[in-house]
Amino acid sequence: MTARTCQSVSHKHTLNQFRRNPQRRYESLSRTELEGYQGQILHHLQGAGAKVGSIIRVTSKDGEVFEGALFPRSEYADQNHICLKMKNGYNIGIHLERAEKIEVIGEGEKPHFTKPKVTTIHEVLPKVSLVSIGGTIASRVDYRTGAVQPALTAEDLTSVVPELGSIAEIDAHILYSELSENLTTAHWQKIAEETARLIRGGADGVIIAHGTDTMHYTSAALSFALQDLPVPVLIVGAQRSSDRPSSDAASNLTGGVAIAARADIASVGVAMHSDMSDRFIVAHRGTRVRKCHTSRRDAFRSINSPFLARYDLQTNQIESFDAVSRRDKNRQLSLKPHFDHHANLVRFYPSFDPALIDSVVANGARGIVLEGTGLGHVSRQCYEPINRAVKQDVPIFMTSQTIWGRVDMNVYSTGRDLVDIGVVPLEDMLSETALVKLMWALSQTKSRDKIRETMLHPVAGEVTERTLAEAS
Amino acid sequence: MTARTCQSVSHKHTLNQFRRNPQRRYESLSRTELEGYQGQILHHLQGAGAKVGSIIRVTSKDGEVFEGALFPRSEYADQNHICLKMKNGYNIGIHLERAEKIEVIGEGEKPHFTKPKVTTIHEVLPKVSLVSIGGTIASRVDYRTGAVQPALTAEDLTSVVPELGSIAEIDAHILYSELSENLTTAHWQKIAEETARLIRGGADGVIIAHGTDTMHYTSAALSFALQDLPVPVLIVGAQRSSDRPSSDAASNLTGGVAIAARADIASVGVAMHSDMSDRFIVAHRGTRVRKCHTSRRDAFRSINSPFLARYDLQTNQIESFDAVSRRDKNRQLSLKPHFDHHANLVRFYPSFDPALIDSVVANGARGIVLEGTGLGHVSRQCYEPINRAVKQDVPIFMTSQTIWGRVDMNVYSTGRDLVDIGVVPLEDMLSETALVKLMWALSQTKSRDKIRETMLHPVAGEVTERTLAEAS
Repeated sequence: MTARTCQSVSHKHTLNQFRRNPQRRYESLSRTELEGYQGQILHHLQGAGAKVGSIIRVTSKDGEVFEGALFPRSEYADQNHICLKMKNGYNIGIHLERAEKIEVIGEGEKPHFTKPKVTTIHEVLPKVSLVSIGGTIASRVDYRTGAVQPALTAEDLTSVVPELGSIAEIDAHILYSELSENLTTAHWQKIAEETARLIRGGADGVIIAHGTDTMHYTSAALSFALQDLPVPVLIVGAQRSSDRPSSDAASNLTGGVAIAARADIASVGVAMHSDMSDRFIVAHRGTRVRKCHTSRRDAFRSINSPFLARYDLQTNQIESFDAVSRRDKNRQLSLKPHFDHHANLVRFYPSFDPALIDSVVANGARGIVLEGTGLGHVSRQCYEPINRAVKQDVPIFMTSQTIWGRVDMNVYSTGRDLVDIGVVPLEDMLSETALVKLMWALSQTKSRDKIRETMLHPVAGEVTERTLAEAS
Repeated sequence: MTARTCQSVSHKHTLNQFRRNPQRRYESLSRTELEGYQGQILHHLQGAGAKVGSIIRVTSKDGEVFEGALFPRSEYADQNHICLKMKNGYNIGIHLERAEKIEVIGEGEKPHFTKPKVTTIHEVLPKVSLVSIGGTIASRVDYRTGAVQPALTAEDLTSVVPELGSIAEIDAHILYSELSENLTTAHWQKIAEETARLIRGGADGVIIAHGTDTMHYTSAALSFALQDLPVPVLIVGAQRSSDRPSSDAASNLTGGVAIAARADIASVGVAMHSDMSDRFIVAHRGTRVRKCHTSRRDAFRSINSPFLARYDLQTNQIESFDAVSRRDKNRQLSLKPHFDHHANLVRFYPSFDPALIDSVVANGARGIVLEGTGLGHVSRQCYEPINRAVKQDVPIFMTSQTIWGRVDMNVYSTGRDLVDIGVVPLEDMLSETALVKLMWALSQTKSRDKIRETMLHPVAGEVTERTLAEAS
């Protein structure tokens, strides 16, 4: 299948929705009926009697059948693809050369992406605040260079996904336009403070549109910074940019807003595609989530933990699973937004140079998360520099580079030796979460004992108690 | 279920096997008929007419039923557990207090774990050499301290798993007794040289018994060091020590030896449990495997790649999938066993201190693998130190901390900026494999261009060509 850029953000169920109630959210356009199509394609579409918005069936030369609403083409787009929004919610571009037959099989309304008004037939809708930080979900392709640039405003985000208007009353603004690899502890603080302001202002949920690269670090940071949350805070991103047929921007946003508005949870989460089926958006717990694929839409995974909530894009139903906290607007939010970036994550590997631990300490580290092998091990050559660090009041915590599972430093002599030197095992906490929590703990005290205590005390579902089942 | 130490290594299907052909591999013992059992348990077992080797049914007070062959107890074992080898191949210890009823339901032979003689009814068996490096697979519990210590000799390994004798003619010896977190490039060289010696001496396959913590680093190292392999080399470990009822030592060894002896592959692999079903042992490609769980038996996963071979513990059948190389004893092995440990793996994260890149270079790094976020990104604060490193002839390669997927540094401005500075993306290569390959490349040349060329040229299935399907 030849996938090419289509003009609009893809979003789920538009087709079904405008079949059910075509007047509700789409206005007629006074432009040409085959907007953007030219040449051969225009000729074929006109021959079939198609208009933008028509439900089209394209049969390919090898017998594949594609059905969907005909989309307008972007002025920048190439002129070889017929662009359809399919029933499954995704856009697809079909190369003209592949098309054997083009038929009109139904009429839809022309999609027109303006900011929807809240319909009066609804009850009062939940209020969801949307804060845009940047990243793919808030980006578009620069057609001169082919590069993806942050561009869309938060208002654009809601205007291109009209479904959102039926889910919640949305206010949106831009806090940053930053690729997520450039975010720092200073950004985390500002995002936490802004989120607190919105919640205290009455939001029923907050959505943060964010680049996916470091979304899980930010979600951990907000999990520690925003305690006793009365409502959920969902970070939403997109793995494919909004002008690609396979974009997940609209579906993630739809699911994220629905969960923020209605789910019976009150934690920080990351809302992204659940799996390859394109049916569910899940909210992963902010402290237990990890980006596990460079490009797949279902790249985010809950590690050692169930997810918080799941939204069904087909039925609009939400299941909530938050064992830690449930929605309660009377709960008083507690804001602890400070982070000290003098924490380091150091990964061990064979022939690791132990002098690097000394270098990290010399560079000003106030604490180190060591990502060991297996149950929490490093080579015996590391014992001395670890010992030196601990004696200089630089606490050292152990997580595992296996990602899944739990460190256990009582099984092998290496683990016990390291505990004797002063290394503190962090159970089944993710390395990324451990690093963020250490930055947060360091901002609160200079006492090594207090830091250790904070790291071992569960704050936001970041560790699971060891069970007998696991121990056996 | 109360799980306690049993005397012997657990191994699969002994029960079925000695039912089918009891004389084949088990000799009678002239010791007491309830060896090792004392007190209350001895009393109950005698009352039931049980002997070591009898097929016993124990019904627990809550109605659970356990059936299996009665095992002798170790002189170190506690005296409260009845120890059975169950039909599913695992050993289990049932606390006497839980037992409501004990019955003898059949007679088996007493299992006696001596080194098996090769039966003359077989054709000439394949020759498999077993080299022991250390780790859990070659360890036992110190009953004074509860600690797991490397102890068993390589001969012990074969003697406690009599099945091996029907699969291959095995010669075994110890090269190291080292926990795998302590292995270095010097060990890799010696292991590679030893493996080459055994293959040149006529082995039809080589098994390396190794700690699981860094098994995947060693497998990558051997993949580069041993080229044009005529026969397979399988690294085998155990996630649970051999005196635990849930040990995977025997089943991994059985599967590993079977694959080494018979599979139509000629690559370096890691042979471990495939999944939780306890039915299959898979050989993962040495350059594409990663330990992904601290303790589960199926902790090892093939990443971005299919596995090499699969052994069915129930049927003894082997499926081979090695697309790169097939067994050919006439192929001349090429040995390139050298590694330069002056390579570093540096993980990026939010608020990462860019000065750490300078420190790594100052500490003598001759090359760096940067483990970036997403498609291969780091913050713009890292550009300058990266630029300085590259200008000092320290090449920098990019992999992704997502583990799955492929870096792509053409999508976002950050990626393109980094490529402009000189960062080299490594496609879908694992970070661990990239580090090991860089250590190997550095040992061969001082030329930065040559190092770059070596890193980009596939040697042992470590990268997959980008396909159109992935690009869409």
